[in-house]
This record gives sequence, C-alpha cells and structure tokens, in this order.
Amino acid sequence: MCSLPVPREPLHRVAVTGGTHGNEMSGVCLAQHWLRMPRELQRPSFSATPVLANPEATAACRRYVSRDLNRAFTSSFLSHSTRATPEDPYEVKRARELNQLLGPKASGRAFDFILDLHNTTANMGTCLIADSVHNVFTMHLCRHLQLQTPDMPCRVFLYQAPGEETYSINSVAKNGMALELGPQPQGVLRADLLSRMRSLVGAVLDFIELFNQGTAFPAFEMEAYRTVSHVDFPRTEEGDLAGTVHPQLQDRDFEPLQPGAPIFQMFSGKDVHYEGEATVYPVFINEAAYYEKGIAFMQTEKLSFSVPALPALTPAPTPGP
Amino acid sequence: MCSLPVPREPLHRVAVTGGTHGNEMSGVCLAQHWLRMPRELQRPSFSATPVLANPEATAACRRYVSRDLNRAFTSSFLSHSTRATPEDPYEVKRARELNQLLGPKASGRAFDFILDLHNTTANMGTCLIADSVHNVFTMHLCRHLQLQTPDMPCRVFLYQAPGEETYSINSVAKNGMALELGPQPQGVLRADLLSRMRSLVGAVLDFIELFNQGTAFPAFEMEAYRTVSHVDFPRTEEGDLAGTVHPQLQDRDFEPLQPGAPIFQMFSGKDVHYEGEATVYPVFINEAAYYEKGIAFMQTEKLSFSVPALPALTPAPTPGP
Repeated sequence: MCSLPVPREPLHRVAVTGGTHGNEMSGVCLAQHWLRMPRELQRPSFSATPVLANPEATAACRRYVSRDLNRAFTSSFLSHSTRATPEDPYEVKRARELNQLLGPKASGRAFDFILDLHNTTANMGTCLIADSVHNVFTMHLCRHLQLQTPDMPCRVFLYQAPGEETYSINSVAKNGMALELGPQPQGVLRADLLSRMRSLVGAVLDFIELFNQGTAFPAFEMEAYRTVSHVDFPRTEEGDLAGTVHPQLQDRDFEPLQPGAPIFQMFSGKDVHYEGEATVYPVFINEAAYYEKGIAFMQTEKLSFSVPALPALTPAPTPGP
Repeated sequence: MCSLPVPREPLHRVAVTGGTHGNEMSGVCLAQHWLRMPRELQRPSFSATPVLANPEATAACRRYVSRDLNRAFTSSFLSHSTRATPEDPYEVKRARELNQLLGPKASGRAFDFILDLHNTTANMGTCLIADSVHNVFTMHLCRHLQLQTPDMPCRVFLYQAPGEETYSINSVAKNGMALELGPQPQGVLRADLLSRMRSLVGAVLDFIELFNQGTAFPAFEMEAYRTVSHVDFPRTEEGDLAGTVHPQLQDRDFEPLQPGAPIFQMFSGKDVHYEGEATVYPVFINEAAYYEKGIAFMQTEKLSFSVPALPALTPAPTPGP
C-alpha cells in the first residue's frame, strides 16, 4: 500500500467542530457546551479548540442557510484568486473565515487535526469518515476507536471518490476525520448518541495524546467501506417521490445487498429490486438531508487492507550546550 | 357524560389533509399520491378529497414557512372583521384559503369531516388526536380504529386544553381528527409508517361508510390521555440546551412517569428528577418541532369514561307520491 507521510511532530493544534450542519444536534450541543466549559478537551500536551462551525444554520436549526457548508472548502471558494463579494452565500463566507481560523488549507500554518461531528437519520451506528486508507495516522486512530468500543460496530467509511478534490471542513487541516452517528432525527438531541459521541471525542484526543507522548503503534489488518455509486428514489415525472426505501432495506446500513433483493416499495404497491451484478453495502439509507441531493442510499464496496506500523515520534534533538 | 350532537345526515364531504406540516412525510406523500390517483379515497356513498395543506412548506421540506399553519385556524385570523393584507404571513393566507375550501369554520357549509395526517419524531406509535371525549361520533371512530389494529396500541390523545379555542385544520370541519404516527424523522419517509398510515386512513373512510349506510354502534368503555402541562428542557441563561431528555424517559411516550423518576440528563452529568406528586403520562417526548416551542414533553393524565351508543342514521323520508 502506498502510504501518506505520517506526522513528524506532536499534534498541538487540534479543533473539534460541531454544527457544521446546524440541525445535527449532538455536535451542536457538544460544541456549545465546550465553548462554555473547555476543560474536557484538554490533554497534557495540547488543548483542543471547540468550534461551532455554522452559527446561523444552528440558530435556524437547519442543515445550512444558503448552501452545504461541508461542501464549500474547495479551491474555487477559498483561493486568493476568487474575489469575495457581499453577495456571496453565507456558507461561502463562513468557509473562508474557518479557513483563516483553522487553515489555510494545504499550508504549513494549518491546524494539525480537525475532528468534525455529525449525525444522520440513517441507521449508521458509529461511523468514522476518513479521507483515504493511505493515511496511516488516521487509520491508526480509527483502529484505536474500534478497540475502545468492542461492544458495537465502528465502521470506517471513505466518503469521497478517489481523486476528487476534498471539500469538507476537516480537509482544511493537515489531518482530520468526521464522526457520523445515527440514527437521530434532525433537530433532536438523544442522550444515548450524545454520550456515545462524547466518549468517542475523548478517545480521539486520548489517541493524539498517546502519539504526542511518543507511543508507537503496530501494523494491523483493517476493513473499510468505499463509495462506488449513488441511487436516487423512484420519482414521478414532476420529481415527486413515487415510492420509498423498501422495508427490507430500511435500517440495514453496512449489510450486504444481494442482486435481486428489493430496494424500493412503490406507492402503487410494486417492489423495485437491486439489478446490479455484485454484492454492495448500502450506507446513508434514507438520510433526510440527501432527498434534495437525489440520494436514497449510497452503494459501497468493502475493502480489506494492511496498515503499516505508526512509528513513535522521534524526540526533538536536545539543543547543544 | 355530556355528549355533543351526533351527525343526523350521511357524511358526504370528507377531506384527507397531508403536509399541514411540510416535513412530515407520510401525509405529504400520501396527499401527493392521492391527488394523482384518488380512487383509494372513494367509497360507495362518498369520495374523500385529498388536500396538500401547505404546499410552500412542503416544497421547502420545512414544518412551515412563516408560522405554524396548524395553529392558524382561529377567529382572529379567519373572521371577516380581520382585514387581509399582502404582508400577512403565508400560513395565515393559506389558512384563509383552506377555510374557504373546507369551511367556513362553524358554518353549515363546512365539510363534514377532515382527517389530518401527521408524523412525530417521538415514539408515539399510533396516536389519534381528538378534540373532546364528548364527541360521540369521533370516539366511535377511534374505537373502530382500535379494533382494526389489535396488535398495537392505538391511543386517543386530547391535545387541546378544555375551553381553549380550537386552532387546527380539522377544526374547520363539522367533525375531524388527526393521526399522529411516530417515530419518524422530519424529512424522512419510512415504508412501515407509510403503510400504517395508509391502512388507518382506509379504516377511517370505512367507518364513515358504515355510518352512512345506517350502521348503529353500541356503547363502550374507553381510555384517553389529556394534556395537563408542558415541560421545557433545562437551559442555560442564554437559552441554549443545558441537558436533554433522560435515557430512562426517552421513547417512553404514554408510559407512567412516577414522582422521583429521572427526566433530564444535564451536560454536567447530573440528573434532574420529576418532582410532581402524581403519576403522569408523558407524550411528545423529544419532538423536534417542539424545541422552539419550549416543550421537551407534555404531561398528560389518563381518563376512563363511557361512550354512549351511536344510533343508526334515520333514513331520509321517502318523497310523497
């Protein structure tokens, strides 16, 4: 496997971002709480910075005000050659502010790590969204989280297609990851998911602390799910829904979908079946925010791969006499 | 029990309204489907009219655009003495249109029955929202629905406080009721809840048909839940959430809450307990739309009462020779 470079220095500049989508309440409420009481985010070698990423969407309890903030961290919006105007959508302005605060993206001055907090209405359980299996540091972090929560699945999902330009808030930092916990309705804060997210954030900070303190991590074998395609709902000519996710597919995120299995139930009563030739693993099944994106679920493939050891940081050379 | 008058004529003018809240998807999609294919709403003695109650909120997939439509059917908005202006909120204008279409409220020309379709993020199961236990016709309808679904609870809930002016869309008709099905996230259409709602609508129309055909219904004993008070979330001085519904209360709609039981979990880790002296039955626990109304859950009391027989319609006198 071709590996990306691992950090050579301790990670001191770490941010935890919530409310990137303003109606995903676990991250919204944790960010608001930690802005008042940041002690929980402190470790001996660093203090993570809590950030409420999209305050206007949070105030309105909506995913976004003008456009999806978590798709706005691209060069076309962030680059110096793009002229900012007062008419720019709120989230484009906010992406530029966050890029100043946490980046600039792809620069040496960017934050070392951003952990971004999300919820989904889909039955995704505990899902870790990473950019690339080649990022050895992040894969070790994912492995650490899996070992901390042995009683429930904790899947690694590669959301972005390979080669696609990164666009998420955590792509601004040198390293990053998103937590995606579900199911939770938009605008609702469930105590069980809040506790789970809070523990996971703690475990992420603990892993960074271990790394900063000079811990080495051995090689291991890993599984992850990678997006292969999107499937839209059946629709009428006018674009209205003509059916919905089949009861046999609903809530079955990450379970294998075999050719011929039902995927939609039409309002007429008819079933629609999966016509692909290969087994796929659907995710984000019936996610509320994806109706407008034309996505009833995403099809993924399951990968198995080896992750090389993460070497201990070399202590900084002692200054000469 | 003091009973309200029962209908003396067959119910011919019946409406089924969906999308009164534009992000409650079971009713939105059923109304849209029946507007294209109304045959399912036909019975020998009448054809129910499907209505998409709030088209702009539906298009935006939000509960409402300017204000809650299902609180707008009051005399202050609908009466002739209120001057309509172009600046009126969208939902106030829409309430007047619907009052023209389905009412006017409290007039002899109003529809005979409106069935209004709702979803909640709370674990309310199948809930029938009626105006008054004194409405013998509606109580018999509720009883009919309970007998049709013996395998799951089908509770009767009296939402409005006694004596309060009615404000819901179904209050425009001579008789009416709302179906409240959950849990379902806002903006999500689950196949299981869609099927359940569709069956219930069919059973409502079947009951009206039985009544129209001259069926008599015997007296029976019934239970219902009636609102006694609202409880807000714990909040910070700025109004942000300081905690959420306790895991031991979450999803326990209609179950008895005893004095001393935990109701909230604070972000500090502390529990808040129910300090009332009487057992209550919480409903709408952690409903997304009620955060902005300052309601974490509603406390209800359970009533037991007798419903008198619903007599058969007297056949219209045969015209003389």
